[in-house]
Amino acid sequence: MQLAQQIAFLREIDKLKTVIRQTHIADESRQENTAEHSWHIAMAALTLAEYADAPIDILRVIKMLLLHDIVEIDAGDTFAFDTAGYEDKFEREQAAAKRIFGLLPAAQAEEFETLWLEFEAVETDDAKFANAIDRFLPFLHNDWSDGRSSWLHHAPTYEQVYRRNATGVGQISTELWAYVQKILAQAVEDGWLAAPVKE
Amino acid sequence: MQLAQQIAFLREIDKLKTVIRQTHIADESRQENTAEHSWHIAMAALTLAEYADAPIDILRVIKMLLLHDIVEIDAGDTFAFDTAGYEDKFEREQAAAKRIFGLLPAAQAEEFETLWLEFEAVETDDAKFANAIDRFLPFLHNDWSDGRSSWLHHAPTYEQVYRRNATGVGQISTELWAYVQKILAQAVEDGWLAAPVKE
Repeated sequence: MQLAQQIAFLREIDKLKTVIRQTHIADESRQENTAEHSWHIAMAALTLAEYADAPIDILRVIKMLLLHDIVEIDAGDTFAFDTAGYEDKFEREQAAAKRIFGLLPAAQAEEFETLWLEFEAVETDDAKFANAIDRFLPFLHNDWSDGRSSWLHHAPTYEQVYRRNATGVGQISTELWAYVQKILAQAVEDGWLAAPVKE
Repeated sequence: MQLAQQIAFLREIDKLKTVIRQTHIADESRQENTAEHSWHIAMAALTLAEYADAPIDILRVIKMLLLHDIVEIDAGDTFAFDTAGYEDKFEREQAAAKRIFGLLPAAQAEEFETLWLEFEAVETDDAKFANAIDRFLPFLHNDWSDGRSSWLHHAPTYEQVYRRNATGVGQISTELWAYVQKILAQAVEDGWLAAPVKE
């Protein structure tokens, strides 16, 4: 009975392969889906764990990253710079978490939902690191493609991109934040990110 | 310098999103790519860890599952029942591991390559569990689709499918193996897997 529930869950989450994100894959042939993105950020966390300024538990970080976007099966992907979409994002995702993790046996459903809530709350060091990596990788995709991954399609302001990373890797890694700032300066110089508005 | 190497690695492995497998995703709309498959098996290991008969270290299992198919970027996906393709599979994949993990700083390259070799050797309990999950999920995909995920396209014999799982979950989990045997009997009864050859 317990196993049947877990297998139903594994079948349900296959749908994450059909949720399409705004970011394009690196060869620019198509937009990325959320399942393959989730793999990529788990790999990024594993590869970059040493840059965390505070101690992190990499197993908890990877679990969060594997799990955190599953709610998009019901709630869809909300683009990072979509202000309207963010208004009811948490409400939509909370209902999704209840339904999808609720397919699992009760104890496991609670474990996964609690990890998802921890990721969303961005309060623990593990959740801060996981969130930062989730923001850093789309940033890298834009760097690799001179902004064609998503920025040139949606034209976020310099301030939006800066803030998203300042509250991402800026909070958890001196070295990754220095790297982001260097790329931002280059992006402005190359003209594929708007220059900061002068005060 | 170290960070630049790690970011080059993260860019390179994006290509796993373009490696196409024989298995179809659950809605049957298209074939699956290896990156999204890697996410799905990591989730399956996380969800089904309790069924391991021997103690496993789930972090090591998940690392192996996230990493183990990266070699397909160079070596391509070899279908489970492709006998000819298996002849030089390890050789091709070993060269790929050298090149791709070799993009990383030396210590990390060695860590990832060692994990990949452990997965391939299928000797430790962690590697046996990871391998079993990697075989179990495509099996489930075929169950969910009455064989349309891959079996009806390639018509493996009953004995091939039985053996692949007997040497997979059959080695690591009494409960998962009982489940597989039940599904196999049903598949034969429903006619989407050939009946076993009588001696």
